[in-house]
Amino acid sequence: MEETVTSAVPSHPLIESDRVEGTAVFDASGKRIGTIKRLVIEKVSGQVVYAVTAFGGFLDLDSEVHTIPWEQLHYDTKRHGYHTTITEEQLRDAPEFSRDDTLLSRREWETLSEYYAGPL
Amino acid sequence: MEETVTSAVPSHPLIESDRVEGTAVFDASGKRIGTIKRLVIEKVSGQVVYAVTAFGGFLDLDSEVHTIPWEQLHYDTKRHGYHTTITEEQLRDAPEFSRDDTLLSRREWETLSEYYAGPL
Repeated sequence: MEETVTSAVPSHPLIESDRVEGTAVFDASGKRIGTIKRLVIEKVSGQVVYAVTAFGGFLDLDSEVHTIPWEQLHYDTKRHGYHTTITEEQLRDAPEFSRDDTLLSRREWETLSEYYAGPL
Repeated sequence: MEETVTSAVPSHPLIESDRVEGTAVFDASGKRIGTIKRLVIEKVSGQVVYAVTAFGGFLDLDSEVHTIPWEQLHYDTKRHGYHTTITEEQLRDAPEFSRDDTLLSRREWETLSEYYAGPL
């Protein structure tokens, strides 16, 4: 953990849809690896289903945009950002459509959820 | 129902957090009464908990901003907007804090949910 960027002040539990951009994403070791560009919400249920995320921390993946299933992001109230256990290797091998910054079909986002939920 | 503004083309089931603004809100009779300014999302669960909505269709409430609990908004895939059974009277009598465009505390949003869920 990089204690220097850890804040003891808990953040507000809510966030406005127009202020989501820029929220930090950290890897399993606590390193800041990217930021959220936007969340994508199911209109009927109001549930976030995935996040479009700009990864800029890995050596080989400077500022690549990847669609990440919501269940792979875990909010850390102390660091004011999302933790993920997704690895550089998983991002590299992810389905092509998850690198297009366009709305996914239901089949695509289910495929993506299964991909990231599977064994490494 | 105002059939002239009804589209037969189903909309995409998903919406991006930075494209939520301007989504239409219709009353029980199908009249367009306002638009969504932003959705407010619980950071941990990724669930939308309420919407900040600009009401401009009622005679006495031109462009008033009101916070509306998510469960009072029902997406209509044909009209590409949200229906609500909330009435002008309910908006007029709503708690003061629901007219401030600031993030609500958990107690406030629970109070608001109970207010709008209650009998007319």
